[in-house]
Amino acid sequence: MQNDVIVNYENKPCYKIIFRDNFAELAENLIEISSNKSRKICIVSDDIVGKLYLGEAKNEISQKFNQVYTFIFDNGEKSKSLSTVELLYEYLINEHFDRTDILIALGGGVVGDLTGFCAATYLRGIDFVQVPTTLLSQVDSSIGGKTGVDFKHYKNMVGAFYMPKLVYINVSTLKSLPDVQFASGMGEVIKHGLIRDKEYFSWLKDNISSVKSRSGDALMQTVYKSCCIKKAVVEEDPKEQGLRAILNFGHTIGHAIEKLSDFKLYHGQCVAIGTMAAANMSNKLSLISDDDVKLIRDTLTSYDLPADLPTAGIDIDASDILYATKNDKKMVGHKVKFILLDGIGNAIINSDLDEAFILEGIRSIL
Amino acid sequence: MQNDVIVNYENKPCYKIIFRDNFAELAENLIEISSNKSRKICIVSDDIVGKLYLGEAKNEISQKFNQVYTFIFDNGEKSKSLSTVELLYEYLINEHFDRTDILIALGGGVVGDLTGFCAATYLRGIDFVQVPTTLLSQVDSSIGGKTGVDFKHYKNMVGAFYMPKLVYINVSTLKSLPDVQFASGMGEVIKHGLIRDKEYFSWLKDNISSVKSRSGDALMQTVYKSCCIKKAVVEEDPKEQGLRAILNFGHTIGHAIEKLSDFKLYHGQCVAIGTMAAANMSNKLSLISDDDVKLIRDTLTSYDLPADLPTAGIDIDASDILYATKNDKKMVGHKVKFILLDGIGNAIINSDLDEAFILEGIRSIL
Repeated sequence: MQNDVIVNYENKPCYKIIFRDNFAELAENLIEISSNKSRKICIVSDDIVGKLYLGEAKNEISQKFNQVYTFIFDNGEKSKSLSTVELLYEYLINEHFDRTDILIALGGGVVGDLTGFCAATYLRGIDFVQVPTTLLSQVDSSIGGKTGVDFKHYKNMVGAFYMPKLVYINVSTLKSLPDVQFASGMGEVIKHGLIRDKEYFSWLKDNISSVKSRSGDALMQTVYKSCCIKKAVVEEDPKEQGLRAILNFGHTIGHAIEKLSDFKLYHGQCVAIGTMAAANMSNKLSLISDDDVKLIRDTLTSYDLPADLPTAGIDIDASDILYATKNDKKMVGHKVKFILLDGIGNAIINSDLDEAFILEGIRSIL
Repeated sequence: MQNDVIVNYENKPCYKIIFRDNFAELAENLIEISSNKSRKICIVSDDIVGKLYLGEAKNEISQKFNQVYTFIFDNGEKSKSLSTVELLYEYLINEHFDRTDILIALGGGVVGDLTGFCAATYLRGIDFVQVPTTLLSQVDSSIGGKTGVDFKHYKNMVGAFYMPKLVYINVSTLKSLPDVQFASGMGEVIKHGLIRDKEYFSWLKDNISSVKSRSGDALMQTVYKSCCIKKAVVEEDPKEQGLRAILNFGHTIGHAIEKLSDFKLYHGQCVAIGTMAAANMSNKLSLISDDDVKLIRDTLTSYDLPADLPTAGIDIDASDILYATKNDKKMVGHKVKFILLDGIGNAIINSDLDEAFILEGIRSIL
């Protein structure tokens, strides 16, 4: 167990992140953010997470709340659409949910992003709580208030900045995660070290076996440390107008690959490949050494992440990746915003790279 | 011309309301809120307003901005849906709009609410500007950041609180408004006097002919005064957690009638009928006198508004109205929140009226 962390929004305390290895304190923490026990609660989850944890979470919450509802949709990115959101609106209307009620997102990033967007827009906003159950959602998507769904093959095209009232993390749920999904989460975890905390990156490099074997203590430390980094960044720049862009390290090319591979690769795998491209580009600009590049590659592969497209078993044209990168929504005007490393642990933003240079970076991971 | 008004949000200056009788200063005011002239602008409007004012507005804006796009949808409440929002998302994606671009809502409440919701959710939020062209939107919906669309016959079920960057009001557009729509807007205007400003109510009562003939000066004074009242209320309670509820005076029963009449009546007409029900209920509780009730009725009817269902040519059962009122989304738990008058110019919130009393209020307007 780690101490609670309080995330500020616009310089005011906004919500707590709670780190536990069970669901036993979920209900009492809901009571704390809830002015009364008569509020209705709807737990939103997907069919896979639902089978594993819905019963336990619902039982726990029902001990303090009388009206607990559940809404389950099919697992996967395909569900992250306005049509699922509409089904949830309809369910909430039929069950007479009003502005004083609460949604709980129990699951991974898709569940959290979709539930958050529904909470942001149902009746112009009702309270919601994140209960992330994957590594990716525990260290990344549940924190910072980014909510949204995909639209016409564009990821997170429609969404809102909308803060949760509470993030309750039960790290023991990570033990049931398939290896490939755990590795995918490690893509973001390693990114946190690289962009902001050299010591944390070294710790990850030195503790591969205990993290990979998912010992309770190693999970708790990893999730806690990554959450603290994410929290610090989003507090400084809640609406992604500057600094927050560094969280997109590895994502510009990563997103392009994710899209072009037709989402066959996991998000964190694509981020890992994008990370290597960005590392190679940083190296070309003499911002990091050859040894640094090797260290990053070794760490990624030790955590079972691909460091290039062949390892991932994917073949895409460099020019297609460049085109998709230019059409990424993070572009400003017609310039692609790239995040590079000026030394391990220190990300910088560069909107001034020319196409030939970017293309070379892309070729380095083919 | 009146002085600009600055609306605060969470105690900080947020956006200006500008009162003019032409579009001549629209472009320069867009420049003022815009960090650069290379931002793309999309004017969103409906086919009726588009025919009247799109050419003029677009010409004006094009003098200062190079990339001005337009998106037009069919006039009317039927368009205020997620499917229109999706068409607009698609248009913006195809035209490569990014987070730094701007939407302009040129039209009435439907255009403003829908454009605002799209701006709130496209790429998690882009800037938007309100250019309201109806009385209802100039004095009410363009101010305060309520955006949204209807969903499954529920009005404004889906939306967001999202502030415009600017509200530019050209009161001369009111001269082209059909009489019944002008009268509908007067329903909200009279409400403003009733809930907050006795003197303004008296002025409206004493200046019926100049307001109804839409003299430039009378329009400017009416719009300015109403905006100031709306501004003061939303500043105190931006997210409708308390005081802002007084703006719903006449709306609880009004919305029920609007829905049950299948939107055959205009919004302001329904508000007028709801206003009379609330006035009668206030009178029953000895909060306002018989003379006050008569004064309210006479003022509404002088402005060509119905004061009851027979005048509006509509026949609905009292019990149906009660049922719809109870299902209005403004209900807290199972209590209907009613706004009453404790004297003209002073609204109060009452969540404690019993059904029999409400039913009596409803019967008073049948």
